[in-house]
Amino acid sequence: MEARYIGIDLGGTSAKIGVVDGEGNLLKHTEVPTHGEGPEPVLQRVVETVREVTIQSGTSWDQVVGIGMGLPGFLDLERGVIKRLTNLPWENVPIVERLETLCNRPVRIDNDANVAALGESWSGAGAGVDDMVAITLGTGVGGGVIAGGRLIHGVSNAAGEIGHVCVEPDGARCGCGQRGCLETISSATGIVRLAKEALEKGESTVLAETAQKGELTARDVFQAAEQGDAVASRVVQTAVDALARVMAMITVVLNPARFVIGGGVARAGDTLFQPLKEAYRKHVLPSAAEGVEIVPAKLGNNAGIIGAAGLIARRENPASAS
Amino acid sequence: MEARYIGIDLGGTSAKIGVVDGEGNLLKHTEVPTHGEGPEPVLQRVVETVREVTIQSGTSWDQVVGIGMGLPGFLDLERGVIKRLTNLPWENVPIVERLETLCNRPVRIDNDANVAALGESWSGAGAGVDDMVAITLGTGVGGGVIAGGRLIHGVSNAAGEIGHVCVEPDGARCGCGQRGCLETISSATGIVRLAKEALEKGESTVLAETAQKGELTARDVFQAAEQGDAVASRVVQTAVDALARVMAMITVVLNPARFVIGGGVARAGDTLFQPLKEAYRKHVLPSAAEGVEIVPAKLGNNAGIIGAAGLIARRENPASAS
Repeated sequence: MEARYIGIDLGGTSAKIGVVDGEGNLLKHTEVPTHGEGPEPVLQRVVETVREVTIQSGTSWDQVVGIGMGLPGFLDLERGVIKRLTNLPWENVPIVERLETLCNRPVRIDNDANVAALGESWSGAGAGVDDMVAITLGTGVGGGVIAGGRLIHGVSNAAGEIGHVCVEPDGARCGCGQRGCLETISSATGIVRLAKEALEKGESTVLAETAQKGELTARDVFQAAEQGDAVASRVVQTAVDALARVMAMITVVLNPARFVIGGGVARAGDTLFQPLKEAYRKHVLPSAAEGVEIVPAKLGNNAGIIGAAGLIARRENPASAS
Repeated sequence: MEARYIGIDLGGTSAKIGVVDGEGNLLKHTEVPTHGEGPEPVLQRVVETVREVTIQSGTSWDQVVGIGMGLPGFLDLERGVIKRLTNLPWENVPIVERLETLCNRPVRIDNDANVAALGESWSGAGAGVDDMVAITLGTGVGGGVIAGGRLIHGVSNAAGEIGHVCVEPDGARCGCGQRGCLETISSATGIVRLAKEALEKGESTVLAETAQKGELTARDVFQAAEQGDAVASRVVQTAVDALARVMAMITVVLNPARFVIGGGVARAGDTLFQPLKEAYRKHVLPSAAEGVEIVPAKLGNNAGIIGAAGLIARRENPASAS
């Protein structure tokens, strides 16, 4: 009887739910809405769907070893309690106990960035290496650290908060209260902010026209850069350079075999990766960079489901094969 | 029969050799000269001394599980080979094979900074926590990373090279070829360099007199700072601030429970630790710093012997108790 694992990636608008095998392959998945609701109705719906998707994947409930869940917010991992979530009105929810009662299986939780990193480490772009840093460039900059084959949490569960490395001591104010965090420059939001600053200064760029048609996006900035727009290219270079400096620093602290870059901004492909690799080589200690790869994430939106399942599966069998 | 472990801390002038019990206590130790000699005579002497110190510690050879060795230089850990050492003319020495033949016990090697970090993690200032970063402020700035209860090496064995985090992009040239590495500012050498720069500018400081009497040391700078000398205080503040910024950054990447600060510069005690803690609080993301401690190293010069023994002892029984 082959072991199977349930992964749940809970977000502000939906919960993605899937069945994963022992190699980190997603056999079947679906999603249910969550928006704005309190925990109890959502959990009832999630548990029903867990049962359904298990059957649909051809898995008997006996094969299900346990359930992992990724959550966006502040968690007490030791007690298995949600302190509060970023996009849902859930506070002080003893989620592990509640789900274990409803499903009669062991449940583990972790924050969404860690879970996505674990997914990429298990069966995505970080597979096969013991030391990996995942960086997600989206609305913010998130991250997760796998070191010595293990997901690292740290003493206050802040490991992987790479978006809050300070890169410009006198830079823009970040949501965290600090100034010049990586997130203020290299996130989608940061890239748009830099582009708007250039527009406000009246610099000549095709982005002026784009901005008149609607809300400017990071994608617009990358497209303009691809077309040779000087202002857009400079903004991309600034974002890439800040990220490269942080990666250079992580290289001499953790020396990961791979940086796995995901999130919406990473969809820019070579327009991001080519200057990023160049900037990295410029900033990094060459002897430390030997063997370090910079690769795009592979699992896309499924990293969260797979990694959540990995919270159960990888516990018995961590990434390290050595 | 209680298990015992031999630790060897090989340096340019001497090899420190000791017998360590299963709790990381150093039972007996001694040292033998190494200076300038090739591997074979040194190894013969080391092996003889290993036997002697084992007997002196009341340990029978049957109790000795294995031998660990810390080495200053470039190692091929997988093959157990010294590529080259920093202060000894040893090149391409198959040290593990050689010592295993001579001692008939398993042998493991690692670089000296990692080994010292492992020692502090096992029975020193880092005991009891799974995530710890050791920083050694000496001639250079060295470091070692314990994450998830394990010593982290990274893909090119550069994990913990904290001295080469860039803190001043246009700063002084570092021995590694980069500019503005932490090591150029916060090492003993860096502190003396900053003090001499102030002297050369003709700034008014008691250090002018000290410098006339002989070679200026970091200790002189700390003593002058304690006595209220403004220039010395500013130099200390610069060194401390650079270190605090790097620690703040490590806090959001790894979130260690403890920073363990050792090396000659750490002997300045409160003159270092008090401004360091203040600067750290200023630079760090407050939520990430919850529970993070900054403490002096405990094992002094014995960290290397104890950590070397730990390469054998901790393999079966890693730091993580959870």
